[in-house]
Parts: sequence; structure tokens; C-alpha cells
Amino acid sequence: MILSHDPRTGEAEDTGIAPSSAEDVERTVARAAQAARELAALDRHRRADLLETIAESAEASAADLVAVAARETGLGVERLEGEVRRSVFQFRLFAKAVREGGFLEAAIDHAGPTPLGPAPDVRRMLIPIGPVAVFGSSNFPFAFSVLGGDTASALAAGDPVVLKAHSSHPQTSALSHSVLRAAVLIAGFPEGTVGIVFGQEAGRALVQAPDIAAVGFTGSLGAAEALQSAIAERPKPIPFYGELSSINPLIVTPAAARRRGAEIARGLHGSVTGSGGQLCTKPGIAFIPADTAGDALVSELADSIRQSPAAVLLNARIAASYGEIRARLSEGAPVIATGAEASDPGYRVAPALLELDAADFREAHAEECFGPLVVVVRYRDETDLIAAFERIPASLTATIHSEPGDALGTLIARVQASSGRLVFDGYPTGVRVSWAQNHGGPWPATNTQHTSVGVTAVRRFLRPFAWQDAPQSVLPVELRDGDADIPRRVDGVLTMPALSAVAGRVA
Amino acid sequence: MILSHDPRTGEAEDTGIAPSSAEDVERTVARAAQAARELAALDRHRRADLLETIAESAEASAADLVAVAARETGLGVERLEGEVRRSVFQFRLFAKAVREGGFLEAAIDHAGPTPLGPAPDVRRMLIPIGPVAVFGSSNFPFAFSVLGGDTASALAAGDPVVLKAHSSHPQTSALSHSVLRAAVLIAGFPEGTVGIVFGQEAGRALVQAPDIAAVGFTGSLGAAEALQSAIAERPKPIPFYGELSSINPLIVTPAAARRRGAEIARGLHGSVTGSGGQLCTKPGIAFIPADTAGDALVSELADSIRQSPAAVLLNARIAASYGEIRARLSEGAPVIATGAEASDPGYRVAPALLELDAADFREAHAEECFGPLVVVVRYRDETDLIAAFERIPASLTATIHSEPGDALGTLIARVQASSGRLVFDGYPTGVRVSWAQNHGGPWPATNTQHTSVGVTAVRRFLRPFAWQDAPQSVLPVELRDGDADIPRRVDGVLTMPALSAVAGRVA
Repeated sequence: MILSHDPRTGEAEDTGIAPSSAEDVERTVARAAQAARELAALDRHRRADLLETIAESAEASAADLVAVAARETGLGVERLEGEVRRSVFQFRLFAKAVREGGFLEAAIDHAGPTPLGPAPDVRRMLIPIGPVAVFGSSNFPFAFSVLGGDTASALAAGDPVVLKAHSSHPQTSALSHSVLRAAVLIAGFPEGTVGIVFGQEAGRALVQAPDIAAVGFTGSLGAAEALQSAIAERPKPIPFYGELSSINPLIVTPAAARRRGAEIARGLHGSVTGSGGQLCTKPGIAFIPADTAGDALVSELADSIRQSPAAVLLNARIAASYGEIRARLSEGAPVIATGAEASDPGYRVAPALLELDAADFREAHAEECFGPLVVVVRYRDETDLIAAFERIPASLTATIHSEPGDALGTLIARVQASSGRLVFDGYPTGVRVSWAQNHGGPWPATNTQHTSVGVTAVRRFLRPFAWQDAPQSVLPVELRDGDADIPRRVDGVLTMPALSAVAGRVA
Repeated sequence: MILSHDPRTGEAEDTGIAPSSAEDVERTVARAAQAARELAALDRHRRADLLETIAESAEASAADLVAVAARETGLGVERLEGEVRRSVFQFRLFAKAVREGGFLEAAIDHAGPTPLGPAPDVRRMLIPIGPVAVFGSSNFPFAFSVLGGDTASALAAGDPVVLKAHSSHPQTSALSHSVLRAAVLIAGFPEGTVGIVFGQEAGRALVQAPDIAAVGFTGSLGAAEALQSAIAERPKPIPFYGELSSINPLIVTPAAARRRGAEIARGLHGSVTGSGGQLCTKPGIAFIPADTAGDALVSELADSIRQSPAAVLLNARIAASYGEIRARLSEGAPVIATGAEASDPGYRVAPALLELDAADFREAHAEECFGPLVVVVRYRDETDLIAAFERIPASLTATIHSEPGDALGTLIARVQASSGRLVFDGYPTGVRVSWAQNHGGPWPATNTQHTSVGVTAVRRFLRPFAWQDAPQSVLPVELRDGDADIPRRVDGVLTMPALSAVAGRVA
């Protein structure tokens, strides 16, 4: 049976959940494949209904979900309550996007003469890709797990989901799955719309199941590589969307250090230590000027780190890794401040601040350390800064703290080339869930040209399809002649939804 | 030196072009990387200008382009003239799309309170991915080669292009590259905006060059696998967009065979033999009912095939493959009609019609045969038809000829699952270049969720980027406050371009 550990004590509890067998996986995927056929025939507003029902179901179970997750993750109740709210918000936002329908990218080119001769009627729309395997993360038991963004994206796209529960929080995953399942039944969806499997072997079998059409994954580069090689053994390749590794460099210009050094020190401390530093957007490297204002900033930051309590990390592996990576990093970048050392039992570690000179910065200092650790790199000038920056792998985010007078052109061009989101005068943690968000970036941040947060994440689980000279009855309702309740591109011209059609659907 | 062959005679000519060395590739990619930085800073209307200049440059050189290609490809002058017009049209269509700007997927979420607390300002847009390697096809010396859709897509996205000339038409490639180069100079773009390399080794080096950010490829599954494994050796993976292999099944219902059997026989014959059957959308398998009307249709088709002249294929390898695959297929599916056998020299083959019973249809009969060959599969009923259909790999297209009374629900669901475009009562060849087109499909038709024909092909060479709380001066002009000349999603609401802004850009 699968064990569940309390990171606050290290104590294990038998969950009573058995690892899924190969037959379990096969059965779950077969149900998903059956559901995929049924879902494809459903009106998209039914999908929106399901997403809203899931939001309600999760909201109603919030207290239970938080209680289980608090025991399994060691994350605070307040943070977990916020995360459930985030999941709920996410399902509602995706429901809104499904109703609005712009994500379908519907387009109609009528038949007619063209400079290349007479052309047929061609209509295009994005359609569901098929059953999606979703691998939840360790650090977000809700927002990036069973009730997370990948699940919301896939269901919004019209795809059934088969979840692989994260070994760090099996009970949270099982309870979250019940919440999904209840919503599926209430909304009258086929049983196979959501399924779940447990255990590493089951995860491998899942990505190799012939009916799985895409994989969403949030986790480490190592785990991703293992899954990727399992996928490579498939006769038919499938897209694997991995959100993998990110250092999230943060740069403070000399002017910003002078003007608001203390404020930045406080903000950076919060961003590095929040949630035990276990966020994919945690700033892992901070470039601080090697001058008096920079000294003051680092000194403030060091003081805050010294006053920080030991952090409870998510599991024994993460806590052990933290110690190992900190030791490796500190060979070239000495630890200049640490928080309280762990005295209580459990997976506790001391927050740490490391420092080195930009001239001494090497690739090895850009190793991602999951946990409350930041490496401060002191730079003399922009050349110095960019030379060190070049040694950092691409990240989900990059942050610049600057003042109006700063000339940022060169720096921004460089930073943009190796990140997916550029934050000004703020912190990369606390990723806004919205229409315009991008949570992605060049390899190794992700392996895709898509986001895994925000409405456009749904694109990952859709594929384009075109109908040529199709009878009206064969076309999806969104592509038929007459008024549509979604924006469409008609003969190249973007056309807003007809108010009457939208009203008709809402009524 | 690289040789150029005349497929009509088999005669070789020394092109005087040397295969590109590793240093040539490195130098060409370095220039592209430099150009990428300059292009990123250019207004998108400048990109549209370049695309229009290329269209003019190609139009002005049409006669020379066609003459060279006629000698190198054996494709008729009329077909080649049409193909140059198609390339020209394609560049102009992409220019229009770039000016319109919807493909940028611009979105602005203003800062403000949300159910999850105060949120920062987030703005998203698609940005150029970086230098793109484009591998031209053998069968479209213009529309899918140096002056082809991948080049137009990449330049529209704002990416420099490094072309790998196809060995079947090196001189056409070199002349096409001069046309591009002239346009680049006229439009005042950096020299590295377009480059070209020759030879298989150079192609391999190209996809491994660190600065190449994506690869567009049209060709065989075998060649794609070789490139894919070269790409797999890169430390940083990059997207590889391959348009690979397609059988393009065509289904005729009993009612359609009764009603317009002779017409379908003529249309199918044209679709199978046009361009020597060397089109990625050529119908390779036709499902015809095993009844009297079906017999009549097949008999008409056989007559047309018998009256067909020998086809000149593109190169010696394709001609040899045609014979080998025809021999393999005919083991289970006897040849029931052939066209004129080759008497003249050159890469000539006889068109062929093969036939077998649906009950005898096996996976082996679904081998793609590039050239004027079609396998007719005779089916008794829908069960029979679908059972055989299930043995065909996914394709770019599927075609159904039916009559209004036919119940097509089950068939359409099945056919849609394994294709990217569904054609009714027509033929899959002659792919319309337009906004709504989709030229793609599940593996092995392609390895992507994108099209390689039509305006949305540009998405392959873009990546999303988000700016958080960025000063106005840092933002791309399309994301700044105030009126925009493109459609944008503002706080979730799709907003049309301001007429004043559009007029300002046009003026």
C-alpha cells in the first residue's frame, strides 16, 4: 500500500491505496478513450458547465482538502486555502473562456474565385486532441495537481483526463479526484471523463498507453527525462508538455539599489522563503551591484535570512537534495547567512543566502535549488552582469528592478531571449492566473512554446481540423453559416460574435 | 560539386555549387543569429514590406524560375507557373496577416483587484522564436521549398531563415535564394535574414547548430527520422515540424457511386495522376462499394489509367521506390490497370490501379507510394469499410463522396479521428492557401499540432512572452496603452483594432 508522510514529523501513514496495476491503467485509459468519443459530441457550453460544477464541488470541499493537504505537504493552512481558491478561480476562468469561444480559433473561408483560381469552402477549428495524462506537481497539491491547471485546460479543450497522483500527497490526490468525480456525475458527464492512477510504474504505463494523446507534466528535469524516454518508446509519438526547471534570475540596477535597497531586500526575502522556497518561479539568483548600496541591500537580506525559521520541505527527497545542492553551491559561493537550523523532527532545512562575485560566477552556480536558498551575485558593471547572466540556463521568468533613468535596452534584449516572462520592479512568485499570463520559457524552463498557466494553456490539448465543402449538418455548430456565439475569422476578417447568438446561448 | 539531373532524360549537369562545409553552415547560422536580434527590433509592418517585396521579386523572376525548375523536376511548365503564382500569393497573404496582427495573440490584463487578491499588470504576445532551418521538399520546388510556406511563415513571424536546398533541384533552390536575397537587400533587411546551405551533411550540421531555434521540414518519414535523431543529440531540444507521410483515403458511398460514379472516376484519376501523383495529398487508397455501381466506377477508372501516359518522376530514387512499392503492394492487391510503360529515357513510370477486397486489406496495403498509383478497396458495408479503414495510418486528409440521404455519423467520427482535413465530394489535392486551411494531422501525417499551409502556419515559429508591470517604453508597440492597430484581448474581452490606429499605420 502507498504511504503518506507528514513532512512536519516524517511520520508515515498507510493510505490504504494500492499502486495501480498495468490492468488498472489499461482500464482507466479505455474508459477515458470511450469518454473522449462522447465528449467530442457535446456542446462546448456543457464543458463550461462541468468546469463550473468542479469549481463548486472544490469550494464545498475546501476545508477537507486543506486539512488533508496540510498533513501531507507541510504547507501552511493559509497558503493551502489560497491555493484551493486559486484552483476554483482557475476552473471558473476556463469556463468563461470556453463560453467565449475565441480559443477555438474558428475560421471560415467561403468558396469563390481567388488569384489562384476557384477555391473550395474551407472551415477550421481547434478540436480536442484526445485523453490527456496529467502528472501533478509536489509543490502545488491543488493548483498544479489533480485539481490543477492542466486538468482545467484539458477538460476545457474537451479532453478526458487521467491523473497520475504525486507520491508526495496521495491522499490529497485521492480526495481531489473524488471532488472531480462528484462534479462529473452531477454534470452528467461520462464516468471516464476523469480517472486517476497511483505509483511510478503506473505513470510509465500511462504515458505509453496507445489511447493517451498528450501529457501535461510539472516537475523535475530528471523525472521529465524518464517520462520522455518512456514516451519515445511509443510507436506513435505524442506531445509531452513539461514545466521543468527554472532559476529565475533577478537583477537590481545600482539606481534601484540606492533608491529602494531595503524594500527590495524585504521583497526578495519573501519571494525566496515563501512556501519554503518551493516555487518554480522562486528567484534563485539575484544580481546585486558591488557597491555601497548593494552592500546595504545584501546586509538587510542577510539579516532577514538569519531571522527566518527553519522551513518544512515537501518530502524527504527534496530536503536531502536541498542539503546536497547547498553544499555544492557553497564550494564557490560561500554561505553568508542562514536561518534557524532544524531542531524539530521532519523535513526541515535552514534558509540560506550565498554570495559570490560576478567574475567568479560559473555554470555550476546556476544549479536550481528547490527550497529557501538564493545566490547573490555581485556585479561591477553591465558587461560584468551580462557575462555572468549568459551562464544561466533559460528560465520561466526574469526580473529587473530599475529606476526611470536606467538604460535597459541591451539588458532587456538579453534577458528576454532566455525567459518567458519579464517582471519589472516586482517578484516572479505569485503567478497571476489570467488571459495574458505566460508560464513557460525556452529549454530547460519548459520543452514547449506554450504556457501552463492562464487561459492560453488550453491550446496544448487541441489540434486544428479543417472541413472542406462540408454539409452544414456535419460542421460543428460554431462553424455553421449564420450568426455565431463566438468570434470567427470569416474570409480573413475577424468577426465578433453576434449578440443575438450569445444571448440565445445564455438564455 | 553538386549535380543536377534532368528527370526527363536522366542526364546530369554540374551545378558548380559545392556542398556547404561545416564552416559554411556555422557562418550562415551566425549571420542568421545576428539578423534575429535586428529583426526583433523591427516594426512588424517592415516584415510585411519584406514579404511583399519577395512576392514582387519572385513574380519578376517567374520565367527564369520556371525554366530552371522544368529542367530539374520534370514537372510541366504550366504546373510550375501555377506553383510560382502560389508562392507569390502565399507571401502576399502572409504580409496581409502580419499587418492585420491577430496572429500575435496580444492580450492585456490590467492590474487590479481579483478574487485572489490584487494582481499585477500582465501583457502577452507571441514573439519570434529565433533562426529557423527550412528543409524544402522534392515535389514542390517553389511552394514547399526555398520560396515556400515555411519560409513565408518564419519571415512573417520575424525569424531569419536558413534553407537547406533539396538535392533534387539545387539550381532552382539557388536561383530562388537569389530572389529572396534580392528582396532582402531591396527591403533593407540584414544580410543574414535568409541563408542557404547545400548537401546532406550540411543539413545535419544545420539542425545541430546551437543558434537554430526550430526546424520546418516537408519530406519522407525516413529523412525526418534521420534529422530527428540529429536534433536529439542537441543539448537543447528544439521543435521539429515535420510534414511526413499520408495515404489520404477517399471513400465513395454506394449512393454516390450510383449517382455520379463516372464523374468520381474522372476526378479521382486526375487527383491520382496530376503532378505524376507526387503530392502529399494524393489519394492513395479509394474505398469503392463492391456492387454494380462500384464495378462501373472502377472500370471507368481503369480505362482512364490505361490511357494515361508514363509519368516523369522527380528523381531516380523516387522512380525506383515507386517500382519497389508497387511490387510489394501488388502481392496482395493485384494491378488491374496500368498506363503507358516508360519507353523514353529518364525517370518514367507507368500509372497503376490496384484492387483488393476490404476483407483482405492489411496494414501492408497502406504503404504510401509516391507516384501515380491508387489502391482500390472494395467494401460490402460500413462494418467492412471501417474495419479496413482502421488499418490505415492517420493522414493529412480524408475524403468522403456521399449523397444527401447517407447516414455518415459513425464514419465521420472515425475518419476525423485520424486526419487533419475532411473533404466532401471533392479531392484532397489542390490545397487551398487561406486563413482557415489545415495541412496537418495526427502521426505519421505530421508530428505536430500545427498546419504547414495557410496563415496559422506562422504559429510554429513564435513563442509566447509576458511582460509584468513593464514601463510603456519597454513594451512592443502592439501592447502599449491607447489605441492599437491589431485585435487584442483586453481584460479578457476581445477588442477590435481602433480604426484610427489602423489608418495611422496605413497612411
